[in-house]
Amino acid sequence: MCEVQMKCLLVVAHGSRRAESNDEVRSLAAALGRQAGDRYASVTAGFLELAAPSIPGGIEECIRRGAKEVVVLPYFLSAGRHVVKDIPAEVDIKRREHPHVNIRIAPYLGSAAGITALLMGLAEAPA
Amino acid sequence: MCEVQMKCLLVVAHGSRRAESNDEVRSLAAALGRQAGDRYASVTAGFLELAAPSIPGGIEECIRRGAKEVVVLPYFLSAGRHVVKDIPAEVDIKRREHPHVNIRIAPYLGSAAGITALLMGLAEAPA
Repeated sequence: MCEVQMKCLLVVAHGSRRAESNDEVRSLAAALGRQAGDRYASVTAGFLELAAPSIPGGIEECIRRGAKEVVVLPYFLSAGRHVVKDIPAEVDIKRREHPHVNIRIAPYLGSAAGITALLMGLAEAPA
Repeated sequence: MCEVQMKCLLVVAHGSRRAESNDEVRSLAAALGRQAGDRYASVTAGFLELAAPSIPGGIEECIRRGAKEVVVLPYFLSAGRHVVKDIPAEVDIKRREHPHVNIRIAPYLGSAAGITALLMGLAEAPA
């Protein structure tokens, strides 16, 4: 049997006082999980504040499940303080605790080249 | 010459104290404008707060240019208070002032079905 390195995806959002907004992110993670097939052992959501799990908590949960690689995907539109400083700082805590796990931060959503095509599609959507 | 109804697209974002974040939205609007070809006479950005122009200000500018149709596109990830209440309220002000202009709110970014594919692409992007 070949050894496959177990990989988990953690979608990280800001978190909101509004439970429905947090649930929207959790549903998105679930939809991503269905789309991911066997590329990720799990796709879950984590939050910078106001909702659970936290980002370190979400990473820890991936590692507890056996992940050797964790991809942290910032569900943010702009490269503000949260993307540039806060998320990397939270990730670094876990990197120090688990030096043998590869914890990688993917580019944030707003940086995706495909976002303009997505927006154009919405603008043209029938009312 | 056939009469073409002049249409403008206004991308509306929350607005940030961080000038770079607002500029990111303005650059996105410019990129959309290049991609739009002749579908829109202009593609510009408007902000709910903390940056200019405001949403009514952005709509007014479109109408001043001659728009008969204005598409307001919420650059937001969740259907929170801003998307559900604040943006429609701002748009309504202009609808009342300009009953002969068709001002339409497109679905917000976070509702786009294609967002999962975009996120999966980012997760898989080479570091």
